[in-house]
Amino acid sequence: MALLLIRQDGKTPQWLNAFKFQYTKIECYNFNEPHPKEKITMALVWKQPHGLLGQYENLKCVASMGAGVDFIFEDPSFHNGLLMTRVVDPLLITDMEEFVMAQIYAHMKGLYQYQIQQSKSHWQQNPYLRKKDITVGIMGMGVLGSATAKALVTQGFNVFGWSNSKKQIEGITTYEKEDLDLFLQQTNVLVCLLPLTPETNGILDLSLFSKLPKSAFIIHVARGPHLVREDLIQSIDQGHLSGAAIDVFPIEPLEENDPLWVHPNIYITPHCASISSPESVVAQIIVNYNRLMSNQPLLNQVDTAKGY
Amino acid sequence: MALLLIRQDGKTPQWLNAFKFQYTKIECYNFNEPHPKEKITMALVWKQPHGLLGQYENLKCVASMGAGVDFIFEDPSFHNGLLMTRVVDPLLITDMEEFVMAQIYAHMKGLYQYQIQQSKSHWQQNPYLRKKDITVGIMGMGVLGSATAKALVTQGFNVFGWSNSKKQIEGITTYEKEDLDLFLQQTNVLVCLLPLTPETNGILDLSLFSKLPKSAFIIHVARGPHLVREDLIQSIDQGHLSGAAIDVFPIEPLEENDPLWVHPNIYITPHCASISSPESVVAQIIVNYNRLMSNQPLLNQVDTAKGY
Repeated sequence: MALLLIRQDGKTPQWLNAFKFQYTKIECYNFNEPHPKEKITMALVWKQPHGLLGQYENLKCVASMGAGVDFIFEDPSFHNGLLMTRVVDPLLITDMEEFVMAQIYAHMKGLYQYQIQQSKSHWQQNPYLRKKDITVGIMGMGVLGSATAKALVTQGFNVFGWSNSKKQIEGITTYEKEDLDLFLQQTNVLVCLLPLTPETNGILDLSLFSKLPKSAFIIHVARGPHLVREDLIQSIDQGHLSGAAIDVFPIEPLEENDPLWVHPNIYITPHCASISSPESVVAQIIVNYNRLMSNQPLLNQVDTAKGY
Repeated sequence: MALLLIRQDGKTPQWLNAFKFQYTKIECYNFNEPHPKEKITMALVWKQPHGLLGQYENLKCVASMGAGVDFIFEDPSFHNGLLMTRVVDPLLITDMEEFVMAQIYAHMKGLYQYQIQQSKSHWQQNPYLRKKDITVGIMGMGVLGSATAKALVTQGFNVFGWSNSKKQIEGITTYEKEDLDLFLQQTNVLVCLLPLTPETNGILDLSLFSKLPKSAFIIHVARGPHLVREDLIQSIDQGHLSGAAIDVFPIEPLEENDPLWVHPNIYITPHCASISSPESVVAQIIVNYNRLMSNQPLLNQVDTAKGY
C-alpha cells in the first residue's frame, strides 16, 4: 500500500516533503522516479499525463490536489471503478477575504503609489481615502463573495452585493441581476468574485466601467476572461477609473511583454489571492488514505456519475 | 472682521479653497497677498514667520492648523493677551488605525514584493501569512496605540501591548516596562506608537530586534529618532528581520540619497499615516471663528499659562 504523487510542474518535491517529514508512516513516491507499481493504492494528482492511471492495477482512489477535478474526468484512463476525492479547504475562503482586505486598504492608503514614489526617491504626501469614503460593491455572492462581504461589514465597511438572484445577508444591501446599474452607481471599489459563465465572460468592459463613479477602483480576483483588458486600460487612461488590482488572467503566467505589467495604475499579482498549499492539504489526504486502507467512507468524495 | 492664513509651504491655496468654496461668509486672506491688516481678528497658522503677529492690532486669536502649538509659543510676537486654539481631530485616530491595518495586510499578503516583481515583469507566487499566523505587538498604549490595538482585536488579530505602566484593555494581553523581553519574544509584527522621550529615543535598535522571532516585521509610525536606522538595515541584511514599513524619519523629507530609499525590504511612506486635511479641520475653525465673533468660549483652547 503506497501513495503516488503525479504532477508535472516543479512543485512535486514540496508535496513529497510535506508527507515525508510530517507523516513518515505512509510510503510516498514521485511518479517519474522508480517506484513499485503494484503497491500503489492511491494517486494524488494535478493535471496528470493522460493514460498513466491505467498502469496501476491495485489503484483504488484518485485524489485531486485542489478543488477542481475536471482534468481527472478528461483522462481516458480514469474509470468509474475508481473512487475520486477533491480538496475542500476552509483556509481558501479566509485567504480570499484577507487578500481582498489587503487590496482595499492598500488602495485607500495609496501604498502602491508610495512604492512607485519610493523607486524614484520621491517624497510626496498624497490625499487618502477613509473607510467611510468607500463603498465596496461585490459582484458574485457565492461562497467567496458572501464570506468576503461579511468580513468587510464586520470591519465597518459599507458593502453592496450583486448576484444573479437576490441574496439576504445581514448588514449588506444586495441587488439582483436587473439592478446592475443601480449597484454600479453606488460602488467606488468594485470586487469581482463572479463564476465564469457565458453570461459573465467579458462583463468587466467599458460600458460597465462607465457606470461606476469617477475614480472607482477595480479588484479582480475571479477568472481572467471576465475582464476586457483593453477596456480597463482605456478607462484608466481616460481618467475615469483610478486603477485596478488584477490577480487573474486569461493566460497564466502573464506574458513578459504584456502591457499590463508596465501600467502605472494597474497592480499585478500572480494569481495568489488564495493558494492551496501542500501543508494545509496534506492533513486531509492522510485522513482519506487511512480511511481507504480501513475501508471507511472517504471525505470530500466526488460522485463520479454526477461529475461533482 | 477677517481670517488670515499664515503658512509658508505650498499648501495655502488648498486651505483658502476649503474656506472660500465651503463657507463663503468668512473673509479669508493669504498673509503674503494684499489684505486689510486692521480687519484681521483671527490668524490660522502653521510655522508662521516670527514677529509677524505683531502687525495685527485687532488680532484676538491665533489658531494652530494642527495638534501642535510649540511653534506659536516660540514666536516672540505671540503674547498672553491673545487666545490660542489647536486642532483636535478624531479622524486622526481612525486614520492611524487604517494605516497600520493597511501595512499589516500588505505584509501578510506580500503586496510590496509583488510590486517589486511587477517592476521586473516577473510572475512568481510567494508563500503568504494568515491572520492566525500573526501576533501584533504594539509598543506604546496611548490614545493611538490603544485604539489601534482595539481595532485589530475586532478584526480577529492576536494583539499584545507594551507600555510604561500596565493597561487593562479587553481582549489584549498587555505588558509593562520590565516585561519588554517577554513581549518581544511573542511578537512577529511590531508596531511602534511610542511617545518620544529620552528613554524611548533609539529604542528600536539591534538589541531589541534580536529579541524578536526570526522574520519579524517592523511598522514604525511614531517618531523618527525612535529608530536606529543602521541597526534596522543590519538586522534585515543578516536575515533576522524580514523587513519594515517606515513612515517617520529624524529629518523630513527623507534626503534623496538616503540608503533607506533603495533597500528592497524597507517600504517608505512620507509621514502620511494620518494627516490633518484642510477639509476636516476647516469645520472646527469656522465654529471657533463664529464663537470668537460672538464672544463665546472657544473649543480646543490652549491654556497659554500651562503651555498645553
